[in-house]
Amino acid sequence: MKVAFVMGSDSDLEIVRPAIEIVKSFGVEISVRVISAHRTPNIAEDFAKNAEKNRFGVIVAAAGKAAHLAGVLAAYTTLPVVALPVSAKTLDGLDALLAMVQMPPGIPVACVGIDAGLNAGLLALQILGVSDNNIAFKLKEYKENMAKKVIEKDKKVSESF
Amino acid sequence: MKVAFVMGSDSDLEIVRPAIEIVKSFGVEISVRVISAHRTPNIAEDFAKNAEKNRFGVIVAAAGKAAHLAGVLAAYTTLPVVALPVSAKTLDGLDALLAMVQMPPGIPVACVGIDAGLNAGLLALQILGVSDNNIAFKLKEYKENMAKKVIEKDKKVSESF
Amino acid sequence: MKVAFVMGSDSDLEIVRPAIEIVKSFGVEISVRVISAHRTPNIAEDFAKNAEKNRFGVIVAAAGKAAHLAGVLAAYTTLPVVALPVSAKTLDGLDALLAMVQMPPGIPVACVGIDAGLNAGLLALQILGVSDNNIAFKLKEYKENMAKKVIEKDKKVSESF
Amino acid sequence: MKVAFVMGSDSDLEIVRPAIEIVKSFGVEISVRVISAHRTPNIAEDFAKNAEKNRFGVIVAAAGKAAHLAGVLAAYTTLPVVALPVSAKTLDGLDALLAMVQMPPGIPVACVGIDAGLNAGLLALQILGVSDNNIAFKLKEYKENMAKKVIEKDKKVSESF
Amino acid sequence: MKVAFVMGSDSDLEIVRPAIEIVKSFGVEISVRVISAHRTPNIAEDFAKNAEKNRFGVIVAAAGKAAHLAGVLAAYTTLPVVALPVSAKTLDGLDALLAMVQMPPGIPVACVGIDAGLNAGLLALQILGVSDNNIAFKLKEYKENMAKKVIEKDKKVSESF
Amino acid sequence: MKVAFVMGSDSDLEIVRPAIEIVKSFGVEISVRVISAHRTPNIAEDFAKNAEKNRFGVIVAAAGKAAHLAGVLAAYTTLPVVALPVSAKTLDGLDALLAMVQMPPGIPVACVGIDAGLNAGLLALQILGVSDNNIAFKLKEYKENMAKKVIEKDKKVSESF
Amino acid sequence: MKVAFVMGSDSDLEIVRPAIEIVKSFGVEISVRVISAHRTPNIAEDFAKNAEKNRFGVIVAAAGKAAHLAGVLAAYTTLPVVALPVSAKTLDGLDALLAMVQMPPGIPVACVGIDAGLNAGLLALQILGVSDNNIAFKLKEYKENMAKKVIEKDKKVSESF
Amino acid sequence: MKVAFVMGSDSDLEIVRPAIEIVKSFGVEISVRVISAHRTPNIAEDFAKNAEKNRFGVIVAAAGKAAHLAGVLAAYTTLPVVALPVSAKTLDGLDALLAMVQMPPGIPVACVGIDAGLNAGLLALQILGVSDNNIAFKLKEYKENMAKKVIEKDKKVSESF
Repeated sequence: MKVAFVMGSDSDLEIVRPAIEIVKSFGVEISVRVISAHRTPNIAEDFAKNAEKNRFGVIVAAAGKAAHLAGVLAAYTTLPVVALPVSAKTLDGLDALLAMVQMPPGIPVACVGIDAGLNAGLLALQILGVSDNNIAFKLKEYKENMAKKVIEKDKKVSESF
Repeated sequence: MKVAFVMGSDSDLEIVRPAIEIVKSFGVEISVRVISAHRTPNIAEDFAKNAEKNRFGVIVAAAGKAAHLAGVLAAYTTLPVVALPVSAKTLDGLDALLAMVQMPPGIPVACVGIDAGLNAGLLALQILGVSDNNIAFKLKEYKENMAKKVIEKDKKVSESF
Repeated sequence: MKVAFVMGSDSDLEIVRPAIEIVKSFGVEISVRVISAHRTPNIAEDFAKNAEKNRFGVIVAAAGKAAHLAGVLAAYTTLPVVALPVSAKTLDGLDALLAMVQMPPGIPVACVGIDAGLNAGLLALQILGVSDNNIAFKLKEYKENMAKKVIEKDKKVSESF
Repeated sequence: MKVAFVMGSDSDLEIVRPAIEIVKSFGVEISVRVISAHRTPNIAEDFAKNAEKNRFGVIVAAAGKAAHLAGVLAAYTTLPVVALPVSAKTLDGLDALLAMVQMPPGIPVACVGIDAGLNAGLLALQILGVSDNNIAFKLKEYKENMAKKVIEKDKKVSESF
Repeated sequence: MKVAFVMGSDSDLEIVRPAIEIVKSFGVEISVRVISAHRTPNIAEDFAKNAEKNRFGVIVAAAGKAAHLAGVLAAYTTLPVVALPVSAKTLDGLDALLAMVQMPPGIPVACVGIDAGLNAGLLALQILGVSDNNIAFKLKEYKENMAKKVIEKDKKVSESF
Repeated sequence: MKVAFVMGSDSDLEIVRPAIEIVKSFGVEISVRVISAHRTPNIAEDFAKNAEKNRFGVIVAAAGKAAHLAGVLAAYTTLPVVALPVSAKTLDGLDALLAMVQMPPGIPVACVGIDAGLNAGLLALQILGVSDNNIAFKLKEYKENMAKKVIEKDKKVSESF
Repeated sequence: MKVAFVMGSDSDLEIVRPAIEIVKSFGVEISVRVISAHRTPNIAEDFAKNAEKNRFGVIVAAAGKAAHLAGVLAAYTTLPVVALPVSAKTLDGLDALLAMVQMPPGIPVACVGIDAGLNAGLLALQILGVSDNNIAFKLKEYKENMAKKVIEKDKKVSESF
Repeated sequence: MKVAFVMGSDSDLEIVRPAIEIVKSFGVEISVRVISAHRTPNIAEDFAKNAEKNRFGVIVAAAGKAAHLAGVLAAYTTLPVVALPVSAKTLDGLDALLAMVQMPPGIPVACVGIDAGLNAGLLALQILGVSDNNIAFKLKEYKENMAKKVIEKDKKVSESF
């Protein structure tokens, strides 16, 4: 199964990139799209309606401000949609966070933190990992490596005092 | 031209009612709908795409939480969409306000205050009044009446001290 | 009918400029003013009282901080007033947004997002477009062009992965 | 010199009442008015323009939501305007606070806390007390009485444990 | 695969109940636990470490205030953790939302809205549905039924005007 | 009567400077002090207790973060205290605003906007102007000059379009 | 060593009571006072200056709104001051939290959560427990009992499904 | 007794450094660690469980975003944990503050201000100073020196006007 990365504007790409890279690095097939919930709503609709048929297992949707993208995609699919709120010049992404996470009853999205690209990618992998032992195994390895890096930094910092 | 009132849930009706009533009281034809941006997205799409053809001049869209309704309708029409954010059990409507007013460049909505049903209706009338002298005239009358009521209250209160 | 752009301070001009430019590009006559609700209140009053007579159809009012300008103009006219909250050095425009959008019952303004100049201009055009087929037609063209640009970016980004 | 109490709506009266009562109890002449910055703007203007001539020394202005009243009065007078933000059904008065306190450079108001009627009245008295020894003396007495009440409560509470 | 529902306090049960019920109604096996990240941290650790072995596919974690539960469980497992922020007497759940959604890089959780029990359950089902056709099918049915209910309400409301 | 400017830290000086300058430019005697409510509390106490005796009419108190300075001075005097909240590296001065404006019943301060040095100075002058015709006259002149500047900018901007 | 509980108003007593009770239940001597930072500032000063001499080891200070009490006490003592922000009718205690926790460099307080009386008491005990083995031992017992209660609730809830 | 400084990431070091330095300058033994509540949870657990045995009297825990570190350590020890919320690229540390200070009943932490490293260190010293006369004495000296510096700045600033 593939992971789709959809962003509302190409200006969101740098925030989404860590999500794309971590998923690719796990050997999972990806597709990256710029689809605007408001400027190209029918493309959003088509994309979401056909996502399952096109072998996507998870959709990562990144958007800023009144960030409707994740919700609009979730309206047309029952695949899990990971919502990645992107901060803009004002309000620090609080608008995007609330516009994404506060979905009405019946249509959930799986929201991660503001500008948290890496976590969006990892969450997509965790979702696929529920039924994919290979991904699940790699996630454990990844977690162990993170721990090792913290331990190295711990050593370095604690020895410097 | 008619005014459409669209709400995301029938639980929003009491907030929308003052909007409906003021528009009706001006002799403008209305239509009241329950359409969910997330649960019935294709009905939202159809409604917005055909709004102009169906002789609507303005759409009033009321929703709470991650309130995408106004934006979703605005994605499919170039008619002005009045956005009415509705407060829910938590966050006092701040989520709905931000999810409505912070629309991305290119797709505006005309946002009024949280739970401000009357103002949503009056704004719809002001928009129609730009080209409808009858409505414009009645709005001036309405404004004068409001002033009179304030003056009466002023008299009553100031005399009581 | 013309569109008026009123800003509370000339420091708001760069935020208002996209609004002015989009409206001009539609061939609509404009007027740009610096009027302070607090420093030149009588000019604000005169401007608003005479706006209809002076053939304005919509007023776009931009201001920051305790942004009263839109409300003060709306107090003296029944024309639709588009409120454009401008961010200042602190609070990211949240003060201006609330001071504009939370108008009391009876005197609505049509609020757009913080620093959302382009949307303020487009909303003004949508309002005129309700009764002006030429503007309405151009808005549809504009929307199609926006969609095309998103589609191009989509192509470019999706092919880069 | 007199103190004027102006409220945007008679629904604000219960919040303003402690302000009125404390000022009256100091033997200062008062006037209580309901004037809406948006519904009766010309009355607001006339009131503020003539306030000094009418022997007002301070104006207390109470309003909720996008609370422009204090700023609108301050636009037409150089008398000190005490701004009393009133909480409404949503947002806990944060909108009124920001719409009052964040005045643009050149036109200050003297803001007190949300729903802080008593403090609005006391601040008005402090302002008059700068040049009125009688009021200044009574303010010191008032302060001593407050201290005594706290000391009594301290005694009662500390002895109960 | 089973779904685990973990709450930080039994006072969260009424918020979690809709999550439990929707998952049960889909015929998925469940387990409901009260585990405190702070008061019973080792039980949280054991639970999370053994969740995969115990055939859980998703963990739904509900907590209020400084809601660490979802993050603490996510620290010990690579299973997807659905975070359900619960509102308390003050702050309307904003503290719980931020304490859950703003996870540091490397350890994501899948956050839903404040008090959004139903959505937490549906998101858990969507995650299982990625590899379980039966659940995926039922989710589509569920979505169609939601749409039908909205359509019925739409009919009822629109006919009443 | 003199105006005192008290700041909690010398790092607040640039924010306070416009206040100092406007008051000086009106020919009013000033005193500028650095007094910390927390680091030199007894100096704060002495200063406030003797302020009236030392012929101060108003105290302007500027501080950031948990800005107690205005309240601490107000605790020891019945002179009006103008509170000037100063923004720090985080929170944009919202902490200082709330810590100043939300004073408990009985001890008001006169709060101006965040970093609003000029307004703090003008408010101090307005308070003195209640009983000082010379200051009152100059305030009107100042206001007229402000209006003239806005009118000039209006001319310049409106002619440029 | 004793623990002092100081509240800004006797209306805070119900919030402080759990703090008092837990400290008493540990066999620690207590003193409960109502002292206002603004209405009885000299009593606050005296209390704090003599706290150490009077064998207090920790001071718990509870206040609402612009909650200066903890900071004012901390200005006059180097004993640890536990700050307990109390929610009022508006703003949910956010004002008190910020006014307490955001102390300037040099004068810390130890802030607990909004209305978190029990935690204020436990933190005071933890501070005494650093050098008092008896208290330290009882804190561990208390923690174990809390864990047991959670385990009982876990059993009850998990068995009910 | 020693003071431990634990940070969730080595990127927090510059915020923690003033805490470390002030404690060292008092001649107190320190230990500085990088331990992640989420990436190395078992190290966090071990550290906290053994902190008392390892002669730590206070733990200072610094973290950003959904800052669970202080709470996670507090879950495993009854030593006082000073929580130091660190601001990140968005939200100005408000997320970290709430995620730290709003601990559930039973497990307090002692929260200081956002990025308030110096205060975290001083609070740790105050806690040790409850039973260590040497530290208590030095804290008083430190406070006097702070006062002297403010007095010098006061002199310098007041003389410059």
